Amino acid sequence: MGAPAGPAVVLLSGGMDSATALAIAHHRGHRPLYALSLQYGQRHAREVKAAQAVARHYGARSIVLDVPLARVAPSALTRRSVSVPLDRPDAEIGKGIPPTYVPARNTVFLSLALALAESTRATAIYLGVNAIDYSGYPDCRPEYLRAFRRLARLATASGVEGRGAPRIEAPLLRMTKADIVRTGTRLGVPWDLTWSCYRGGARPCGRCDSCRLRAKGFAEASKAVNKGRK
Amino acid sequence: MGAPAGPAVVLLSGGMDSATALAIAHHRGHRPLYALSLQYGQRHAREVKAAQAVARHYGARSIVLDVPLARVAPSALTRRSVSVPLDRPDAEIGKGIPPTYVPARNTVFLSLALALAESTRATAIYLGVNAIDYSGYPDCRPEYLRAFRRLARLATASGVEGRGAPRIEAPLLRMTKADIVRTGTRLGVPWDLTWSCYRGGARPCGRCDSCRLRAKGFAEASKAVNKGRK
Repeated sequence: MGAPAGPAVVLLSGGMDSATALAIAHHRGHRPLYALSLQYGQRHAREVKAAQAVARHYGARSIVLDVPLARVAPSALTRRSVSVPLDRPDAEIGKGIPPTYVPARNTVFLSLALALAESTRATAIYLGVNAIDYSGYPDCRPEYLRAFRRLARLATASGVEGRGAPRIEAPLLRMTKADIVRTGTRLGVPWDLTWSCYRGGARPCGRCDSCRLRAKGFAEASKAVNKGRK
Repeated sequence: MGAPAGPAVVLLSGGMDSATALAIAHHRGHRPLYALSLQYGQRHAREVKAAQAVARHYGARSIVLDVPLARVAPSALTRRSVSVPLDRPDAEIGKGIPPTYVPARNTVFLSLALALAESTRATAIYLGVNAIDYSGYPDCRPEYLRAFRRLARLATASGVEGRGAPRIEAPLLRMTKADIVRTGTRLGVPWDLTWSCYRGGARPCGRCDSCRLRAKGFAEASKAVNKGRK
C-alpha cells in the first residue's frame, strides 16, 4: 500500500478491467474508496453482483445506482432485440464500432462519478478503460479522456474554487489484456468474482468479444510466465 | 418557422429559460423535438409537470427520466437539510457558488441528452443555460460549454464516423433575463405554464434567487417596452 492519497471514486462494472483499476486505487493508498456501479438496463444483473463482491474484497463502499440509459440509448447490451456479435475474428475486434456500443455510456458514467467525487471530496476518479485490447468504443480513447479531464476542471466547484477538480485516472489505458492480468494478479484481484461475458447465461459464453478478450489476456499472460520460467 | 433542421433534443426543466430554448429550437424548424426532463430528487415534482405542459404546447415528445443524482450529489435542491438562501441582495446573486448548486448536474444532464441524441440521430442538443442573470454555477459558463462540445465530438459514434456529433446549442447564454422574456414572448412561450421557484410551495415564494431573477426579467422587459412607447 502506498501513502494516504485521499478518497477516490472507482467506476466498477464487475469485469476484470475495472476490478484491476480498483486494485490499483487501493494499492496507491486512496481511502475511503467509493465503488460506483451503474445498473443501466444491461441484460443481466450478474455484473452488478460481481461488482459488489469485488468492492467488498477491497473494503470499498459500494454504491449502486439505477440509470435509465436503456430508455434513451438502445444497444445490444440493453435490448434483447439487438444481437451480441459472436465469434468475431481477433483482427475484427476493436475495428469499427460494434452493436454492443451504448451511446454516451462512459460520459454518463463519468458525470455521475464526478458528482459523487465532488460530494465526497475525492481527489481522483478511476476507471478501467483500455484502448489496446478493447471493443472499439469511441469513449475509451485517450483523446476522449483528455477532453473529459478538461471538462471536469470547468464543471466543478472544486475546479473553479481552486481546490482542484478530481483527477481522471485510467491506469489500464495503454495496457494489453495480458498486462492487465499480470497487474491484477500481483495486486490480488479475485478473478473468480469478476464477470466479463456480455450475455446473461449461467456461465460465460466464451464467444462474445468480452469473453474472447478475457481468454486472450489470461492465455498471453500465462504464456509469458512460462517463457520466463524456461 | 425556419427550414427543416432535423431532430433535436431539448433539456427541459419547466423553468422559463429552458422553455425559451425549446421555443427557439421549434422556431428554427427542428422536428421531431425530444424534450428530455430529469427527475433527480429535486424537492418538488412541480417542475417536471411544468416541463410536460410546455413540451405539449410545442408538440415535443416528452421523455422524463429518473436520475438518482440526489444520492451522489447533496444540494439545497435535493436535500431538505440544506436551506435555499432567500432575499439575497441582487449584487450577491451570481457571485460565488450557492448551496443550490448540484454537483456536476449539467454534465449528467448533457451526457444523457447526448445518449438520446445519438439514438435519435438528433443534429442538436438545446439547453437554456445563461451566464448573465444566473446563480453562479460553474457548469453554466461559456468555457464549460465549449469543453462539452469538444467532448461530444470525441464521445460519440456519430462524431467518430464523420456524420458529425450533435451540436450543443445554448441560445440564451449571453442574454439578460429581460432578453429572455422578450424572446420567449415573441415565440409564444406559455409563461403561465412555466415554474421557476426553487422551493416546493403552492405558489412561488418570490424570495429565492430563481424567483428574484424571474421577477427582474419581467420587470426589466416591461420597463423597456414602456420606454419604447414614450
